[in-house]
Amino acid sequence: MRKVYVLRLGHRPKRDKRVTTHVALVARAFNANGFVLEGDDSHVLAAVRGVLERWGGMGFAIESTRDGKTYVREWKRAGGIVAHLTMYGINIANAPRIPQRKPLLVVVGAEKVDPWFYHNADYNIAIGNQPHSEVAALAIFLDRLGNGKELGKRFPDARIRIIPQKAGKRVVRAN
Amino acid sequence: MRKVYVLRLGHRPKRDKRVTTHVALVARAFNANGFVLEGDDSHVLAAVRGVLERWGGMGFAIESTRDGKTYVREWKRAGGIVAHLTMYGINIANAPRIPQRKPLLVVVGAEKVDPWFYHNADYNIAIGNQPHSEVAALAIFLDRLGNGKELGKRFPDARIRIIPQKAGKRVVRAN
Repeated sequence: MRKVYVLRLGHRPKRDKRVTTHVALVARAFNANGFVLEGDDSHVLAAVRGVLERWGGMGFAIESTRDGKTYVREWKRAGGIVAHLTMYGINIANAPRIPQRKPLLVVVGAEKVDPWFYHNADYNIAIGNQPHSEVAALAIFLDRLGNGKELGKRFPDARIRIIPQKAGKRVVRAN
Repeated sequence: MRKVYVLRLGHRPKRDKRVTTHVALVARAFNANGFVLEGDDSHVLAAVRGVLERWGGMGFAIESTRDGKTYVREWKRAGGIVAHLTMYGINIANAPRIPQRKPLLVVVGAEKVDPWFYHNADYNIAIGNQPHSEVAALAIFLDRLGNGKELGKRFPDARIRIIPQKAGKRVVRAN
Protein backbone atom coordinates (compact mmCIF):
# COMPACT_ATOMS: atom_id res chain seq x y z
CA MET A 1 0.00 0.00 0.00
CA ARG A 2 1.27 3.42 -0.87
CA LYS A 3 1.57 6.23 1.65
CA VAL A 4 -1.27 8.77 1.62
CA TYR A 5 -1.07 11.86 3.81
CA VAL A 6 -3.50 14.75 4.14
CA LEU A 7 -2.21 18.31 4.54
CA ARG A 8 -4.62 20.86 6.00
CA LEU A 9 -3.73 24.44 5.04
CA GLY A 10 -4.69 27.74 6.60
CA HIS A 11 -6.21 26.48 9.82
CA ARG A 12 -7.57 29.27 12.03
CA PRO A 13 -7.73 27.88 15.58
CA LYS A 14 -11.00 29.48 16.66
CA ARG A 15 -13.07 29.24 13.53
CA ASP A 16 -11.79 25.98 12.14
CA LYS A 17 -11.30 23.82 15.20
CA ARG A 18 -14.15 21.46 14.52
CA VAL A 19 -13.85 21.39 10.75
CA THR A 20 -10.11 20.67 10.93
CA THR A 21 -10.75 17.89 13.45
CA HIS A 22 -13.26 16.43 11.00
CA VAL A 23 -10.66 16.61 8.23
CA ALA A 24 -8.19 14.65 10.38
CA LEU A 25 -10.75 12.04 11.42
CA VAL A 26 -11.86 11.55 7.83
CA ALA A 27 -8.21 11.05 6.86
CA ARG A 28 -7.93 8.28 9.47
CA ALA A 29 -11.29 6.63 8.82
CA PHE A 30 -10.88 6.68 5.04
CA ASN A 31 -7.53 4.95 5.17
CA ALA A 32 -4.97 7.71 4.80
CA ASN A 33 -1.76 7.15 6.78
CA GLY A 34 -1.22 10.58 8.20
CA PHE A 35 -2.50 14.07 8.86
CA VAL A 36 -0.40 17.22 8.69
CA LEU A 37 -1.63 20.52 10.09
CA GLU A 38 -0.18 23.75 8.76
CA GLY A 39 0.21 25.89 11.84
CA ASP A 40 -0.40 24.80 15.36
CA ASP A 41 -3.43 23.83 17.40
CA SER A 42 -2.80 21.54 20.32
CA HIS A 43 -6.56 21.12 20.94
CA VAL A 44 -7.16 19.66 17.50
CA LEU A 45 -4.14 17.39 17.65
CA ALA A 46 -5.09 16.19 21.14
CA ALA A 47 -8.65 15.43 20.01
CA VAL A 48 -7.34 13.35 17.13
CA ARG A 49 -4.86 11.52 19.37
CA GLY A 50 -7.71 10.71 21.76
CA VAL A 51 -9.58 9.02 18.91
CA LEU A 52 -6.49 7.01 17.95
CA GLU A 53 -6.12 5.77 21.53
CA ARG A 54 -9.71 4.59 21.83
CA TRP A 55 -10.59 3.58 18.29
CA GLY A 56 -7.17 2.50 17.09
CA GLY A 57 -4.77 3.62 14.43
CA MET A 58 -1.67 4.41 16.47
CA GLY A 59 0.28 4.00 13.24
CA PHE A 60 -1.59 7.00 11.85
CA ALA A 61 0.86 9.89 11.77
CA ILE A 62 -0.05 13.28 13.21
CA GLU A 63 2.27 16.12 12.34
CA SER A 64 2.28 19.84 12.15
CA THR A 65 4.30 22.05 9.85
CA ARG A 66 5.05 25.74 9.95
CA ASP A 67 4.78 26.16 6.23
CA GLY A 68 2.66 24.12 3.86
CA LYS A 69 4.72 25.24 0.86
CA THR A 70 7.91 23.80 2.29
CA TYR A 71 6.04 20.58 3.10
CA VAL A 72 4.76 20.31 -0.47
CA ARG A 73 8.19 21.06 -1.94
CA GLU A 74 9.81 18.37 0.17
CA TRP A 75 7.10 15.86 -0.62
CA LYS A 76 7.70 16.37 -4.33
CA ARG A 77 11.47 16.34 -3.94
CA ALA A 78 11.13 12.92 -2.29
CA GLY A 79 9.28 11.63 -5.36
CA GLY A 80 5.74 12.07 -4.11
CA ILE A 81 2.64 13.35 -5.87
CA VAL A 82 0.50 16.27 -4.69
CA ALA A 83 -3.25 16.47 -5.30
CA HIS A 84 -4.96 19.69 -4.23
CA LEU A 85 -8.72 19.49 -3.73
CA THR A 86 -10.43 22.65 -4.91
CA MET A 87 -13.80 23.52 -6.40
CA TYR A 88 -11.91 25.38 -9.16
CA GLY A 89 -10.09 22.29 -10.39
CA ILE A 90 -10.93 19.55 -12.87
CA ASN A 91 -14.08 17.71 -11.85
CA ILE A 92 -13.10 14.32 -10.46
CA ALA A 93 -15.40 12.71 -13.02
CA ASN A 94 -13.04 14.03 -15.73
CA ALA A 95 -9.76 14.12 -13.81
CA PRO A 96 -6.82 12.00 -14.94
CA ARG A 97 -6.13 8.89 -12.94
CA ILE A 98 -3.43 9.45 -10.33
CA PRO A 99 -0.42 7.12 -10.64
CA GLN A 100 -0.87 4.37 -8.08
CA ARG A 101 2.51 3.70 -6.60
CA LYS A 102 3.97 7.03 -5.54
CA PRO A 103 3.32 8.56 -2.11
CA LEU A 104 0.34 10.88 -2.36
CA LEU A 105 -0.18 14.13 -0.48
CA VAL A 106 -3.78 15.35 -0.53
CA VAL A 107 -4.00 19.08 0.18
CA VAL A 108 -7.15 20.70 1.53
CA GLY A 109 -7.46 24.38 2.33
CA ALA A 110 -9.61 26.49 4.56
CA GLU A 111 -11.24 29.68 3.24
CA LYS A 112 -8.42 31.01 1.01
CA VAL A 113 -5.56 29.06 -0.48
CA ASP A 114 -2.44 30.78 -1.81
CA PRO A 115 -2.30 30.56 -5.63
CA TRP A 116 1.13 28.94 -5.21
CA PHE A 117 -0.58 25.65 -4.30
CA TYR A 118 -2.65 25.64 -7.48
CA HIS A 119 0.50 25.94 -9.53
CA ASN A 120 2.68 23.56 -7.58
CA ALA A 121 0.20 20.74 -7.08
CA ASP A 122 0.41 17.97 -9.67
CA TYR A 123 -3.38 17.87 -9.76
CA ASN A 124 -6.11 20.31 -8.87
CA ILE A 125 -9.20 18.20 -8.45
CA ALA A 126 -12.76 19.37 -7.88
CA ILE A 127 -15.22 17.18 -6.02
CA GLY A 128 -17.86 18.89 -8.07
CA ASN A 129 -17.40 22.53 -9.09
CA GLN A 130 -19.74 23.80 -6.40
CA PRO A 131 -19.02 25.32 -3.01
CA HIS A 132 -19.49 22.82 -0.20
CA SER A 133 -16.93 21.47 2.24
CA GLU A 134 -13.32 20.36 2.40
CA VAL A 135 -14.44 17.59 4.74
CA ALA A 136 -16.85 16.24 2.14
CA ALA A 137 -14.33 16.71 -0.65
CA LEU A 138 -11.68 14.76 1.20
CA ALA A 139 -14.10 11.93 2.03
CA ILE A 140 -15.27 11.55 -1.56
CA PHE A 141 -11.70 11.73 -2.88
CA LEU A 142 -10.44 9.04 -0.48
CA ASP A 143 -13.56 6.93 -1.05
CA ARG A 144 -12.89 6.90 -4.80
CA LEU A 145 -9.20 6.23 -4.18
CA GLY A 146 -10.09 3.21 -2.02
CA ASN A 147 -12.93 2.03 -4.26
CA GLY A 148 -15.26 2.25 -1.28
CA LYS A 149 -13.45 -0.58 0.51
CA GLU A 150 -11.98 1.76 3.12
CA LEU A 151 -15.37 1.91 4.83
CA GLY A 152 -14.82 -1.64 6.03
CA LYS A 153 -11.42 -0.78 7.49
CA ARG A 154 -10.62 -2.32 10.89
CA PHE A 155 -8.12 -1.02 13.41
CA PRO A 156 -6.40 -3.96 15.12
CA ASP A 157 -5.13 -1.79 17.97
CA ALA A 158 -8.56 -0.39 18.90
CA ARG A 159 -9.63 -0.52 22.55
CA ILE A 160 -13.30 -0.28 21.66
CA ARG A 161 -15.30 -1.06 18.58
CA ILE A 162 -18.86 -0.88 17.35
CA ILE A 163 -21.12 -3.82 16.72
CA PRO A 164 -23.35 -2.41 13.98
CA GLN A 165 -27.02 -2.26 14.99
CA LYS A 166 -30.25 -1.78 13.08
CA ALA A 167 -31.31 0.53 15.90
CA GLY A 168 -29.47 1.77 18.97
CA LYS A 169 -25.80 1.67 19.90
CA ARG A 170 -23.53 -1.16 20.83
CA VAL A 171 -19.90 -0.56 21.69
CA VAL A 172 -17.68 -3.34 23.05
CA ARG A 173 -14.11 -3.69 24.23
CA ALA A 174 -12.05 -4.69 21.27
CA ASN A 175 -9.88 -7.23 23.06
CA MET B 1 -36.93 12.50 -9.16
CA ARG B 2 -37.93 11.86 -5.60
CA LYS B 3 -37.68 14.47 -2.87
CA VAL B 4 -34.62 14.22 -0.61
CA TYR B 5 -34.31 16.49 2.41
CA VAL B 6 -31.57 16.66 5.03
CA LEU B 7 -32.46 17.27 8.67
CA ARG B 8 -29.69 18.54 10.93
CA LEU B 9 -30.29 17.77 14.61
CA GLY B 10 -28.84 19.31 17.75
CA HIS B 11 -27.15 22.33 16.23
CA ARG B 12 -25.32 24.45 18.81
CA PRO B 13 -24.96 27.92 17.28
CA LYS B 14 -21.47 28.70 18.52
CA ARG B 15 -19.73 25.38 18.18
CA ASP B 16 -21.45 24.04 15.11
CA LYS B 17 -21.86 27.08 12.91
CA ARG B 18 -19.33 26.05 10.30
CA VAL B 19 -20.03 22.33 10.39
CA THR B 20 -23.77 22.88 10.04
CA THR B 21 -23.17 25.26 7.13
CA HIS B 22 -21.08 22.53 5.50
CA VAL B 23 -23.90 20.03 6.03
CA ALA B 24 -26.33 22.37 4.27
CA LEU B 25 -23.95 23.08 1.38
CA VAL B 26 -23.26 19.39 0.90
CA ALA B 27 -27.01 18.78 0.79
CA ARG B 28 -27.31 21.34 -2.02
CA ALA B 29 -24.21 20.31 -3.97
CA PHE B 30 -24.99 16.59 -3.75
CA ASN B 31 -28.46 17.01 -5.14
CA ALA B 32 -30.76 16.98 -2.14
CA ASN B 33 -33.79 19.26 -2.45
CA GLY B 34 -33.86 20.81 0.96
CA PHE B 35 -32.17 21.43 4.28
CA VAL B 36 -33.95 21.56 7.64
CA LEU B 37 -32.26 22.90 10.74
CA GLU B 38 -33.51 21.81 14.13
CA GLY B 39 -33.37 24.95 16.21
CA ASP B 40 -32.54 28.38 14.95
CA ASP B 41 -29.46 30.07 13.60
CA SER B 42 -30.01 32.99 11.29
CA HIS B 43 -26.27 33.21 10.48
CA VAL B 44 -26.16 29.70 9.10
CA LEU B 45 -29.37 30.08 7.11
CA ALA B 46 -28.19 33.43 5.71
CA ALA B 47 -24.87 31.92 4.64
CA VAL B 48 -26.65 29.14 2.79
CA ARG B 49 -29.07 31.58 1.15
CA GLY B 50 -26.09 33.63 -0.02
CA VAL B 51 -24.68 30.58 -1.77
CA LEU B 52 -28.05 29.90 -3.45
CA GLU B 53 -28.18 33.46 -4.76
CA ARG B 54 -24.72 33.36 -6.29
CA TRP B 55 -24.29 29.73 -7.26
CA GLY B 56 -27.91 28.86 -7.98
CA GLY B 57 -30.42 26.47 -6.53
CA MET B 58 -33.22 28.82 -5.52
CA GLY B 59 -35.51 25.79 -5.63
CA PHE B 60 -33.49 24.30 -2.76
CA ALA B 61 -35.64 24.55 0.35
CA ILE B 62 -34.25 25.98 3.58
CA GLU B 63 -36.34 25.42 6.66
CA SER B 64 -36.00 25.33 10.37
CA THR B 65 -38.00 23.31 12.84
CA ARG B 66 -38.36 23.55 16.59
CA ASP B 67 -38.43 19.85 17.11
CA GLY B 68 -36.75 17.22 14.95
CA LYS B 69 -38.99 14.47 16.37
CA THR B 70 -42.14 16.18 15.18
CA TYR B 71 -40.54 16.72 11.79
CA VAL B 72 -39.64 13.03 11.51
CA ARG B 73 -43.10 11.93 12.66
CA GLU B 74 -44.78 14.13 10.05
CA TRP B 75 -42.42 12.99 7.31
CA LYS B 76 -43.33 9.39 8.01
CA ARG B 77 -47.03 10.15 8.34
CA ALA B 78 -46.87 11.66 4.85
CA GLY B 79 -45.47 8.40 3.49
CA GLY B 80 -41.78 9.31 3.53
CA ILE B 81 -38.77 7.26 4.58
CA VAL B 82 -36.24 8.31 7.22
CA ALA B 83 -32.56 7.33 7.08
CA HIS B 84 -30.45 8.29 10.08
CA LEU B 85 -26.70 8.41 9.51
CA THR B 86 -24.80 7.14 12.53
CA MET B 87 -21.52 5.35 13.11
CA TYR B 88 -23.47 2.84 15.24
CA GLY B 89 -25.71 1.72 12.38
CA ILE B 90 -25.39 -0.88 9.66
CA ASN B 91 -22.36 -0.24 7.47
CA ILE B 92 -23.53 1.17 4.16
CA ALA B 93 -21.68 -1.67 2.43
CA ASN B 94 -24.15 -4.09 4.05
CA ALA B 95 -27.19 -1.85 4.40
CA PRO B 96 -30.43 -2.73 2.62
CA ARG B 97 -31.24 -0.73 -0.49
CA ILE B 98 -33.58 2.14 0.26
CA PRO B 99 -36.84 2.10 -1.74
CA GLN B 100 -36.42 4.51 -4.62
CA ARG B 101 -39.68 6.31 -5.00
CA LYS B 102 -40.68 7.57 -1.59
CA PRO B 103 -39.57 10.96 -0.24
CA LEU B 104 -36.38 10.47 1.78
CA LEU B 105 -35.37 12.37 4.89
CA VAL B 106 -31.69 12.00 5.75
CA VAL B 107 -31.04 12.77 9.41
CA VAL B 108 -27.61 13.84 10.68
CA GLY B 109 -26.86 14.70 14.28
CA ALA B 110 -24.30 16.75 16.10
CA GLU B 111 -22.51 15.34 19.18
CA LYS B 112 -25.39 13.45 20.84
CA VAL B 113 -28.54 12.21 19.21
CA ASP B 114 -31.59 11.24 21.27
CA PRO B 115 -32.15 7.43 21.21
CA TRP B 116 -35.65 8.15 19.90
CA PHE B 117 -34.19 8.81 16.44
CA TYR B 118 -32.46 5.44 16.34
CA HIS B 119 -35.75 3.71 17.01
CA ASN B 120 -37.96 5.82 14.79
CA ALA B 121 -35.74 6.00 11.72
CA ASP B 122 -36.47 3.39 9.08
CA TYR B 123 -32.74 2.90 8.61
CA ASN B 124 -29.70 3.58 10.76
CA ILE B 125 -26.81 3.65 8.34
CA ALA B 126 -23.11 3.89 9.14
CA ILE B 127 -20.72 5.43 6.65
CA GLY B 128 -18.13 3.15 8.16
CA ASN B 129 -18.33 2.28 11.86
CA GLN B 130 -15.62 4.75 12.81
CA PRO B 131 -15.85 8.24 14.27
CA HIS B 132 -15.34 10.92 11.63
CA SER B 133 -17.77 13.57 10.46
CA GLU B 134 -21.44 14.05 9.72
CA VAL B 135 -20.40 16.21 6.76
CA ALA B 136 -18.40 13.35 5.28
CA ALA B 137 -21.11 10.82 6.09
CA LEU B 138 -23.76 12.90 4.33
CA ALA B 139 -21.56 13.42 1.26
CA ILE B 140 -20.80 9.71 0.89
CA PHE B 141 -24.43 8.76 1.46
CA LEU B 142 -25.72 11.21 -1.17
CA ASP B 143 -22.90 10.28 -3.56
CA ARG B 144 -23.93 6.61 -3.41
CA LEU B 145 -27.59 7.59 -3.72
CA GLY B 146 -26.80 9.59 -6.88
CA ASN B 147 -24.33 7.05 -8.26
CA GLY B 148 -21.71 9.78 -8.37
CA LYS B 149 -23.61 11.67 -11.06
CA GLU B 150 -24.59 14.46 -8.69
CA LEU B 151 -21.04 15.83 -8.94
CA GLY B 152 -21.84 16.98 -12.46
CA LYS B 153 -24.97 18.80 -11.31
CA ARG B 154 -25.60 22.22 -12.87
CA PHE B 155 -27.67 25.01 -11.42
CA PRO B 156 -29.51 26.80 -14.23
CA ASP B 157 -30.27 29.83 -12.07
CA ALA B 158 -26.65 30.45 -11.03
CA ARG B 159 -25.24 33.95 -11.37
CA ILE B 160 -21.68 32.72 -11.49
CA ARG B 161 -20.07 29.43 -12.37
CA ILE B 162 -16.65 27.85 -12.48
CA ILE B 163 -14.77 26.93 -15.62
CA PRO B 164 -12.68 24.00 -14.33
CA GLN B 165 -8.95 24.64 -14.58
CA LYS B 166 -5.88 22.45 -14.36
CA ALA B 167 -4.32 25.19 -12.27
CA GLY B 168 -5.73 28.45 -10.92
CA LYS B 169 -9.27 29.76 -10.73
CA ARG B 170 -11.73 30.84 -13.35
CA VAL B 171 -15.17 32.08 -12.42
CA VAL B 172 -17.52 33.57 -15.00
CA ARG B 173 -20.96 35.07 -15.05
CA ALA B 174 -23.40 32.32 -15.74
CA ASN B 175 -25.64 34.26 -18.14
